[in-house]
This record gives sequence, C-alpha cells and structure tokens, in this order.
Amino acid sequence: ARAVRGLLLDVSGVLYDSGGDGGVPIAGSVEAVRRIKASGLKLQFCTNETQATREKFVKKLQGMGFDISVAEVTAPAPAACRILRERSLRPHLLVHNDLVPEFAEIDKANPNCVVIGDAAENFTYANLNEAFRVLIGMEKPVLISLGRGRYYKETDGLKLDVGAYMKALEYACDVQAEVVGKPAKMFFESALAEMGVPPQQAIMIGDDIVNDVGGAQRCGMRALQVRTGKYRPCDENHPHVKPDAYVNNLAEAVDIILQQL
Amino acid sequence: ARAVRGLLLDVSGVLYDSGGDGGVPIAGSVEAVRRIKASGLKLQFCTNETQATREKFVKKLQGMGFDISVAEVTAPAPAACRILRERSLRPHLLVHNDLVPEFAEIDKANPNCVVIGDAAENFTYANLNEAFRVLIGMEKPVLISLGRGRYYKETDGLKLDVGAYMKALEYACDVQAEVVGKPAKMFFESALAEMGVPPQQAIMIGDDIVNDVGGAQRCGMRALQVRTGKYRPCDENHPHVKPDAYVNNLAEAVDIILQQL
Repeated sequence: ARAVRGLLLDVSGVLYDSGGDGGVPIAGSVEAVRRIKASGLKLQFCTNETQATREKFVKKLQGMGFDISVAEVTAPAPAACRILRERSLRPHLLVHNDLVPEFAEIDKANPNCVVIGDAAENFTYANLNEAFRVLIGMEKPVLISLGRGRYYKETDGLKLDVGAYMKALEYACDVQAEVVGKPAKMFFESALAEMGVPPQQAIMIGDDIVNDVGGAQRCGMRALQVRTGKYRPCDENHPHVKPDAYVNNLAEAVDIILQQL
Repeated sequence: ARAVRGLLLDVSGVLYDSGGDGGVPIAGSVEAVRRIKASGLKLQFCTNETQATREKFVKKLQGMGFDISVAEVTAPAPAACRILRERSLRPHLLVHNDLVPEFAEIDKANPNCVVIGDAAENFTYANLNEAFRVLIGMEKPVLISLGRGRYYKETDGLKLDVGAYMKALEYACDVQAEVVGKPAKMFFESALAEMGVPPQQAIMIGDDIVNDVGGAQRCGMRALQVRTGKYRPCDENHPHVKPDAYVNNLAEAVDIILQQL
C-alpha cells in the first residue's frame, strides 16, 4: 500500500446529517476528526456547500463539536473568486444571500460573466431572466457554476439544485458552464495544494459516488465511500465509478487508515 | 412546381409583431389572409403560443382585423390534450394562468405526468420544485413540453422561454421531455389533417428558420421564410436548414403563390 499523508473529507453526509435544526453529527465523526489531527495526517475539508460563507459554515460545525477552522475548508466560492481574479472577470451573482460576502472583495461593476450557485429562494423568474440577459448580451458568454448537483433533500422536501438552473441558462445561451466545486479536477487539486500532499498520498472520504469518489479518483487519489449521508445501496453497482473501499462511516474509515500508518 | 392546395401560417412575426399593447399587424398581412381565403386555398394557423387560450388569442387577432376563427388554429395545448387523453395521462400543470382553461376537460387528480408551458410569472422557485417533485416521484417520469424555445423578446426585455425550464427538469430527473408544438412532426401533421391536405401540396410560411421552416420541411412540406418577426440576416447562412424561398413578408408570399395557381 502507498503511504498516506493526507485526508480529504466531504462534510455533509460524512461529518453530519443536515436536518430540521441545521444538522446532527454522525456517530463517531467528531471523535474521528480529532483522531486524524492527533495522528499527524494532513486534513482538508472539501465541500460543495454554497448556501453560506465558510465562516458561518465552520461555526455551525464547531457548534456540533467538530475541530475545524476556515483555513481547512475548500469550498466552491473561494475557488470561483480565484478564477475571477486570474481572468479579470467581474461577476453578476445569482447565489444565496448568505454566500454574497464571499465575493465582497471582487469587482462586480459592469459584469462580464455570471456566477451561479444554489440560490434557493433567489431563483425567482425575475432573477433568472436578469442573469440570462447579462449572459446573452455578451459576445462570448461566460457562465461559472458553483456545482452541478441535480437536487437535494431538505426537511420540507426535495429541491432543485444549482445544476438544473445551470442547464437552463446553458440551453438558453448555447453556452457550456465552467463548473467549480466537486467533481472538478482543479477543485481537488487546490485542496491538495493547501495540504502540500500529492494525490498519490491522499485519500478522499465521501458519501457521493460521482462527485466525491469519481472526482478524486480522476485526480489520482484513492477514495472511500461511506455508507452514510446520501449513500444508497445501488451506488455499489455504479456503471463507471468504483471506490477503493466501502466503509460504514467516517469512524471506521479512520480506524482502518490509522491502523495501516 | 407541385400543385398547392393549402397554406400553414405562423402567427407571431408573420401576421403581427408583438409589442407594448399586445401587437401591431405587419403591413399587408390582414389583406393577405383575406386574399388566401378568397382564392379557395385551405388555410390553417400554426402557432406555438401558450400564454393564452385559443379563444383569447383569436379575439386579439380579430381585434387587429384578421379573418380568423378558433377552428383554424393549431396550437400546442389542444395537441397536448389529445396526447393526454390517448394515453390516460393526468397532468400536473406548470403553465401560464391564461392557458389553464384549455385543460378544463382533462382529469388532473393524482397526476402521472407534468405538462410544462411558458408559465412566465408562474415559473417561481416553489412551482418549479413542485413540478420536479411530481416527476421525480414517478417510476418512469413523463414530461410533456409545449415547445422548446430558448427565449423571446418582450417590451421590457428578453425572457427565458419554456425550453430553458424544460432543460432544468430534464437534467434534474434524467428524463427527456416529449415536445408538443413546432417543430414536432406530429404537430404539423395534425394541422395538415385539419385541412385535409397532404404535405406535398402544402406550404408553411414562417419567420423561424428552425421551428417553422425546418420542422415543416421534415414533414415533406415546402416552407418559405419571411423577413419579418424574428428573422435575422444570419438565418440565411443556417448550417442545416434552407427554406424553399425567402420572401420579404406574408403579402409578398401570397402574391407569388396566387400567381402560380
């Protein structure tokens, strides 16, 4: 077995289950994060969360007892900000209100691209038309999407995710979105760079067979799928993606990894 | 030249331009419709309009001076109703309020499909999630779309059309919509059946290179593109579709056709 020097953890469905009052830790996960840190392994949290700033997100997790800081979180909005700066792009934002502060330092005057996230209640008819008009008015429309999820579950039912609205704008403008966030290769690479660990020496642990496991493996990492969160038994028959191993939960993954160090 | 026995006319952009107060007839079009009728040619109006019942739509056109009746109009909603009846489908409707009466006779209890039209202001976050939940709850989702337009222009700016929202639901549910309305073959065929004219003896006149011209030609009809409405000079370089002829407007088309009778 190759040496392991760093772990990437998905958050929702691995550390906690989102529920009525914001979330409940998955049994053994708080302790598992502490054991990773005590072992000397590098650790980065890798989330597609775009309904809150990292600050708010980290506070929520700390409130559940997790040892986590903002610098340890790789998330789509800061990754998008890097791209915007590198390419001198000024975004029109179609995102959740609580995410807007992540873009505070970015010039948004006279926009030359659209950034779409899971805007939830901000996905109004008027806001979608406005984002569309910005795009269609460009000679070469640039659409950056903070994910490509189809839908997710909340306590009051299933909700369309950012990917659906991304597809609507792609079709209307005959453009292909650039997706930031998992499973984009660049997203995993920036998390690895943060830890200073090459992909061969890192393991991703996630509940999403495509976005976590498939994405990490395409970067040259190994990947474990936990049987918590959005895991479904039919994932084990996925036509394209096969994790390096299944584990019942994060605690079991950490048991196995620490034993092999 | 093959004999001509019937004409199919697109409405918006051929008979009138939609504008601030509902629309303005295109010069010569009111007279052109009268001349067609006086000639003895069969005539059917073929529209993708889904923001009003045919009754309302026809009243608006009559108000502009056009000689037109409900029976002469082929439109997506009645075509959808035929499909719903034939296949015992009970729709959940995501359509414009003014279109709902077209579905008055259709059983809508305990829905087993979704019908989406240009719902305009009804394209709310809540309504989209609701339509999505109905679809994703089916073993084999059935999505019927009253068109596949990308966008259209209103006096207050460009608006996303039904096709964009159709794509969002298609992606979220991993399903392909069945499109009623132009350019669907069945739609043109039902207009031809209404006239009792075979495709070889019919000519379509429209302003939309793909939905009018391309669709009609795929049914074996000839098709003219008018240089009014949404016509753009770049249409004349379309990679796949070439009309049988261009005409400046409906009046000129009728001049030429009547001369050749």
